[in-house]
Amino acid sequence: MTSKYWSPVVGRLSPYKPGEQPKQKVIKLNTNESPYGPSPKALQAMRDACDDHLRLYPSFTADRVRRAVSANLNVAMEQVFVGNGSDEVLAHAFNAFFQQPRPLLFPDISYSFYPTYCGLYGIPFQPIPVTEDFRIEPADFLPDAAHGPAGGVVLPNPNAPTGRALSLAEIERIVAGNPQCAVVIDEAYVDFGTESAVPLVAKYDNLLVVQTLSKSRALAGLRVGFAVGSPELIEGLNRVKDSFNSYPVDSLAEIGAAAAIEDTEHFEKTRLAVMKTRDELDASLRKLGFEAPKSLTNFIFARHPDHDAAKLAAGLRERGILVRHFRLPRIDQYLRISVGTDEECAQLVKALSELVA
Amino acid sequence: MTSKYWSPVVGRLSPYKPGEQPKQKVIKLNTNESPYGPSPKALQAMRDACDDHLRLYPSFTADRVRRAVSANLNVAMEQVFVGNGSDEVLAHAFNAFFQQPRPLLFPDISYSFYPTYCGLYGIPFQPIPVTEDFRIEPADFLPDAAHGPAGGVVLPNPNAPTGRALSLAEIERIVAGNPQCAVVIDEAYVDFGTESAVPLVAKYDNLLVVQTLSKSRALAGLRVGFAVGSPELIEGLNRVKDSFNSYPVDSLAEIGAAAAIEDTEHFEKTRLAVMKTRDELDASLRKLGFEAPKSLTNFIFARHPDHDAAKLAAGLRERGILVRHFRLPRIDQYLRISVGTDEECAQLVKALSELVA
Repeated sequence: MTSKYWSPVVGRLSPYKPGEQPKQKVIKLNTNESPYGPSPKALQAMRDACDDHLRLYPSFTADRVRRAVSANLNVAMEQVFVGNGSDEVLAHAFNAFFQQPRPLLFPDISYSFYPTYCGLYGIPFQPIPVTEDFRIEPADFLPDAAHGPAGGVVLPNPNAPTGRALSLAEIERIVAGNPQCAVVIDEAYVDFGTESAVPLVAKYDNLLVVQTLSKSRALAGLRVGFAVGSPELIEGLNRVKDSFNSYPVDSLAEIGAAAAIEDTEHFEKTRLAVMKTRDELDASLRKLGFEAPKSLTNFIFARHPDHDAAKLAAGLRERGILVRHFRLPRIDQYLRISVGTDEECAQLVKALSELVA
Repeated sequence: MTSKYWSPVVGRLSPYKPGEQPKQKVIKLNTNESPYGPSPKALQAMRDACDDHLRLYPSFTADRVRRAVSANLNVAMEQVFVGNGSDEVLAHAFNAFFQQPRPLLFPDISYSFYPTYCGLYGIPFQPIPVTEDFRIEPADFLPDAAHGPAGGVVLPNPNAPTGRALSLAEIERIVAGNPQCAVVIDEAYVDFGTESAVPLVAKYDNLLVVQTLSKSRALAGLRVGFAVGSPELIEGLNRVKDSFNSYPVDSLAEIGAAAAIEDTEHFEKTRLAVMKTRDELDASLRKLGFEAPKSLTNFIFARHPDHDAAKLAAGLRERGILVRHFRLPRIDQYLRISVGTDEECAQLVKALSELVA
């Protein structure tokens, strides 16, 4: 479809395609949601907040969430920006920092929303190939003879959908080596075993660390993400946000997100449970002949040398199990399998054992 | 503040300044919120939805809201787009339709977010002066010798902050007279006595009507707005939305918004109460010597010929009453006063009677 009423950019966009949200009952291992519910304290706080105060506009700076992040990560409130999911935070960051004449760098295998944002804002970009075993080579993100200083750098750590992570020293090498531009580290999956780059924010004005409550906090339905960075980067995000939509985080989401961040007990219990199940699932998949990079996330990125990934995904779907399959170069033989409950993973392994028998 | 890490556009932005959200107890007549709470059924539906399902992503097309709007306004679901408040819907509409070589037209006295969006997207615009008594003259928005065909038209009906409305025939004249571009009618305040342009959507492919749940549905804290238009306009909005943030409406907001739209009884009762109080407040203000265009909204835009508006606003603030005062050309002698409860309005009138005595 096209329309004479569209701005020229609209026809050129390549919109992101979110994973399916099925209406029927299935085992849903396709969008990296938590298999456990969110903090019961967060749920209760939101229930208590369903009252006449909702007639009023929310805080346009999501103060409760900023205060909770500030206390939890030991940063100043002024270093925190909150948005409608980390997707919105990333969108604003692309707009605020990456509209530069020089190209933005990101791994060629990475979050598929990055090139979409570039299309939206007309950002030139250069994908940097990861190694054959999906390793990000920090040196490839530093200015060298092959490419001059970048206009920006963005990478997920751990990377998605590969599940592989860089060490904090490797991240610091990339941040320190690009003093000319903003470097955004997208830590959606950091709580499943990777060291966060947040402590580097005190040292590097060009570093923005983005996190979400959709994964380890089990609140994908609430749409809250945040960024931690220097006051000048946060001010850039606020200027863009306040030119787009002043109040992207509603009052219930603000209250629930703050309570979830404060409930460290539930957080620890559930993220450790996910990591334990992940490692067991990893072992079970290997027994079936699957190969996968060691995952530091809440999903496993696996292929079977003798079985086509699309056919495996279709076979799982017939058995009522959804996983994610990307029809993209280099990874079309892989499945991205979210870590479910122990019971869900057992059913997945049973189904796969039939399919690869 | 500026930063070498900012995209060039960031320094040129003029971010919107939302009305103050005070933390202390005041009479808050500054942001046109409803003085009454939202639908009790909506509150209960949200309370019931505070459960483990929040671990899952929401519907990325906000289907419950689209279904409720479809039934309520008698349009197809495919003609409805839902966003994070009408501010986000408008932002996407500016992006999707108004990035044109020819200028966007809007009234010179109007929603102050419009020029901000233009700054964000680099949209050329031409403000069209309203008459001295704040009337919008439809002929001024039609192509003529003075200006050729517009790149777009956006106007609130009723207009904010003036409170004046155009008839449906006048709106149709503007829509029909601009077949070359999208025409966005921003109906944030339509439920307080103005005829909606939604029925014209069946006839004009270039018409987009935007509404919000923040005013007549008393859910400013929930951030839900929507647009009704032709499939090609809705597709344009979806393409932009899915290139920015797939799930801007969280699961609780989706459930609450749908229930609020369905609760027509509460809606009718509260909007009629607001209109009754508004007309009584209008009469009281006139007795005090204030002048105001006849309001068809939930606020009154008033000036006193003998008293400076900024001083009146400051005097009210000292008495614990907030109203909105815009330091903008042509309207800096006006106060925009939201309609509160009868009790709040009585206190306002008492305070003003002291200030103008």
